[in-house]
Amino acid sequence: MVAPARFVASMRRAALSSRSRLGVQHLRPAAQIRWTGSTTATSEPHQPDAKGTVKGGAAPAKTIKYTSESYSVERNSKFGKLTQEHVKYFQDLLGSESAVIDGFSKDASEDIEPFNSDWMRKFRGHSQLVLKPSSTEEVSKILKYCNDNTLAVCPQGGNTGLVGGSIPVFDEIVINMQKMDKIRSFDDVSGILVADAGVILEVADNFLAEKNFIFPLDLGAKGSCHIGGNVATNAGGLRLLRYGSLHGNVLGIEAVLPDGTIVDDLSTLRKNNTGYDLKQLFIGAEGTIGIITGVSIICPQRSPAINVAIFGLESFEQAKKAFREAKVQLSEILSAFELMDGRSQGIVNKVTGKKHPLEGNYPFYCLIETSGSNTDHDSEKLQAFLEHVMESEIVSDGVLAQDQTQIAELWSWREGITECLGHWGGVYKYDLSIPLSELYALVDDVRERLAKAGLVGDDESYPVVDVLGYGHMGDANLHLNIAVRGYNKEVEKQLEPFVYEWVQSRNGSISAEHGLGFTKKAYIGYSRSETMIKLMKQIKDLYDPNGIMNPYKYI
Amino acid sequence: MVAPARFVASMRRAALSSRSRLGVQHLRPAAQIRWTGSTTATSEPHQPDAKGTVKGGAAPAKTIKYTSESYSVERNSKFGKLTQEHVKYFQDLLGSESAVIDGFSKDASEDIEPFNSDWMRKFRGHSQLVLKPSSTEEVSKILKYCNDNTLAVCPQGGNTGLVGGSIPVFDEIVINMQKMDKIRSFDDVSGILVADAGVILEVADNFLAEKNFIFPLDLGAKGSCHIGGNVATNAGGLRLLRYGSLHGNVLGIEAVLPDGTIVDDLSTLRKNNTGYDLKQLFIGAEGTIGIITGVSIICPQRSPAINVAIFGLESFEQAKKAFREAKVQLSEILSAFELMDGRSQGIVNKVTGKKHPLEGNYPFYCLIETSGSNTDHDSEKLQAFLEHVMESEIVSDGVLAQDQTQIAELWSWREGITECLGHWGGVYKYDLSIPLSELYALVDDVRERLAKAGLVGDDESYPVVDVLGYGHMGDANLHLNIAVRGYNKEVEKQLEPFVYEWVQSRNGSISAEHGLGFTKKAYIGYSRSETMIKLMKQIKDLYDPNGIMNPYKYI
Repeated sequence: MVAPARFVASMRRAALSSRSRLGVQHLRPAAQIRWTGSTTATSEPHQPDAKGTVKGGAAPAKTIKYTSESYSVERNSKFGKLTQEHVKYFQDLLGSESAVIDGFSKDASEDIEPFNSDWMRKFRGHSQLVLKPSSTEEVSKILKYCNDNTLAVCPQGGNTGLVGGSIPVFDEIVINMQKMDKIRSFDDVSGILVADAGVILEVADNFLAEKNFIFPLDLGAKGSCHIGGNVATNAGGLRLLRYGSLHGNVLGIEAVLPDGTIVDDLSTLRKNNTGYDLKQLFIGAEGTIGIITGVSIICPQRSPAINVAIFGLESFEQAKKAFREAKVQLSEILSAFELMDGRSQGIVNKVTGKKHPLEGNYPFYCLIETSGSNTDHDSEKLQAFLEHVMESEIVSDGVLAQDQTQIAELWSWREGITECLGHWGGVYKYDLSIPLSELYALVDDVRERLAKAGLVGDDESYPVVDVLGYGHMGDANLHLNIAVRGYNKEVEKQLEPFVYEWVQSRNGSISAEHGLGFTKKAYIGYSRSETMIKLMKQIKDLYDPNGIMNPYKYI
Repeated sequence: MVAPARFVASMRRAALSSRSRLGVQHLRPAAQIRWTGSTTATSEPHQPDAKGTVKGGAAPAKTIKYTSESYSVERNSKFGKLTQEHVKYFQDLLGSESAVIDGFSKDASEDIEPFNSDWMRKFRGHSQLVLKPSSTEEVSKILKYCNDNTLAVCPQGGNTGLVGGSIPVFDEIVINMQKMDKIRSFDDVSGILVADAGVILEVADNFLAEKNFIFPLDLGAKGSCHIGGNVATNAGGLRLLRYGSLHGNVLGIEAVLPDGTIVDDLSTLRKNNTGYDLKQLFIGAEGTIGIITGVSIICPQRSPAINVAIFGLESFEQAKKAFREAKVQLSEILSAFELMDGRSQGIVNKVTGKKHPLEGNYPFYCLIETSGSNTDHDSEKLQAFLEHVMESEIVSDGVLAQDQTQIAELWSWREGITECLGHWGGVYKYDLSIPLSELYALVDDVRERLAKAGLVGDDESYPVVDVLGYGHMGDANLHLNIAVRGYNKEVEKQLEPFVYEWVQSRNGSISAEHGLGFTKKAYIGYSRSETMIKLMKQIKDLYDPNGIMNPYKYI
């Protein structure tokens, strides 16, 4: 157990004592695999960079199959086709050469590829034009022009999504927000930050860290994702348990509607009950009714005391017990409670070659984080919690990080899963809300189903490598993942609609935090009634009567 | 200082030591004036009860001036007039006699008055019919019928609002939600409560208290207000600082649209990113696009350790400093930071006859509450904070509650203000968001302005008794109050548009948490742009094309 003596002193189990002697030696810096370690593209091997190549040994974008071929979807003929004249208009409007990437021109035809595909290599579009506006006014003029000419558009942030929402399907014009990357203001009494939509989440958080504040959202892709994209997809992430959802924290939004109208709702007030809270419609709308250009958000005080621990547990039942105890005993300092099954940890070990911080293998692991204002108090609370869960045999083994490096290292065993999963070629990903009591049962059921169908195995002849689950236990949010050697119709037939029906029968959600994007569009009926879908379509028609905003997706 | 020795020990100021010897003797139980002390009407003297009388010595409802006479507003002739045939339809629909109060019938003409007026005696309508549905289906049938017959309706919860939103202006049919008062479900792992809209806030909180959870909203009117009304008005209250806004905490809503459509969005999931978050539109819509019938809300663990203190401070600058320090030092356990000026405390003293817990008079007072999971830790944090603010002379004097009774007593000096203010006959109330740096300056400016106009004085010949301010400092939310001996056009001319212009020039909000209701309808332009107002009207027209929902109000 990598813990200061005072935490281990009263834990009487031999296993723990022997772990405690191991000290920190086996822990290595997390930078090698941690997605969040850097804002540069080099730390994200599968992420396309701005130069049109895909880094980290992944295949070039051109080998990715077109979405239009992988899925049965047809281009909507009502949309206009891009002409040289259109391109000329945008070149004149945006001025700078770097703001327009034109697929027609020979020089740029390579450069456009990274904006046409995603880091998972699952989606690929045919866009011939990428626009990078530098101001809200430019976004307004672009959208008005597109709307007047019925040109479909695909808003794009950091392009880190998991459901294909930010990748064009056909020839939609990509409106990439990376040039709108300024922090506009920050008030260090109220903690209210106002920033452009294209600010990278980690950049915003680093800015806040200097002022002892924290962005109330954290997720694996923080080094690349844009805060505008986070808001557009209503990202949940690792600290929702503590800081709540973006619907509560976002105080204002500036957005542009398809007709060019600028929605100037960028309030910096904590409270403003003057009319319908329209900005809420843009949170989670995934760019289907407008483009978010600016965000105002309330940020909490950064906690000086952070503790992170990983536990091994013998069953999901024990994990549930640990969660209940953590809620009661750690209460206001609990900032994350993450679940990882043994298979997910095995995969990180296999792909990275790193030794797991816990010796032995457990069917389940929990990562727990506390954040508070007083180190001694937090340590005492955590010690009492640890003693309790060890003595009552809820938890079988555990390690506690002793410094920042170890904190990052422990987090890497949770945050690294997503990336490592892609190692064999592909992953079927489901992001589900399921009542906590049955949260993990789906993983077992899916594994059994695929095994029965003879699809799971260790050698190359089996399409499925493994079926595993992890997620935000604190939010009853499971990430079900099926690592495959290649996308396979047989596997898909076993998975769908089985997974959706399973979730529906538990009144869960088929998309907890990833959104609908392209992949979930057809399945919204499993989580929403006909009435709700009808009401949603009404909103879509109200704001985007020509349907130019991110078509083929959402509802 | 009413504090355990360990808090006072290291505070070296003589004033404090002498206060500490006073002990608790001068503190009396708060039940006499505390609005929140009971769910019965008897603890709320100005609140009409169901029997048609107004309790606590206030004048009977009939002496209240009709809103239609006090303000220049005309009945919209497009609305149908109520007939005996309509009444018959509703009687048949609702069955039970107690569910229909019919102003046509002689027996009931008195009974209808309490539903036609408010506890402040500021608004009075002409409604001839009150309906009390018992189910969502009944609400649906009522609204469909009203919509088909263009009969205007006024949704009504606990009728505790401050802007006339729940009182009919003309002959709108009142739809009172008091019969929908069931708690539907509670999950004690996730903390998710599902309840009818008509559940009284305090009833919900008491139910949760038994299970060690807390309703994430608290306000003075908790003994009467409905949770449906809280959501419809996006109530902020005393603990927003800690638990965040209803936009973040409400997970689902069941509501009925004017055409009878039941919006079945009563999710019990913490996360559900499947489409537009339409329920958000109903939060703060004040019954203008539909009637909320059910609410699903996530409730935090109840904190076993609660501390409350009141401080006296020499200036608003000192109050700001104390707030900054509290945010840093009390951080995750800070659950309320309330500001009261000396005049507001003087008024509570004058009206209730109670002795203030602090000796001496200070221009400003702050009430601070902490909630945490560990009594010793919280006491230690609070002690460190107290020592710091006393030693650095940010705070001049203070008392700390030692038990539940004293906690209630200290809170009564904050929560009792609203009620005591009505003592002289009337109050002009403004609920404003103002950047913290200038939060209190408005009170001084308004006082000076009214004094210059010769309107403020101690004897009966002056209309204005006093100008004072208090509010939720943690949310930069000021309640500006002008206590008057009677509503007076001269005073109004001095106040408006002066107050609104003052707030607008600071980019504040003319309604932080009370909503627009009837009184603020005309002033939304001070806080919202023309674009935003246009977009809001679009939403109103979408859901309520006949405009029957709560007309003459909102936008």
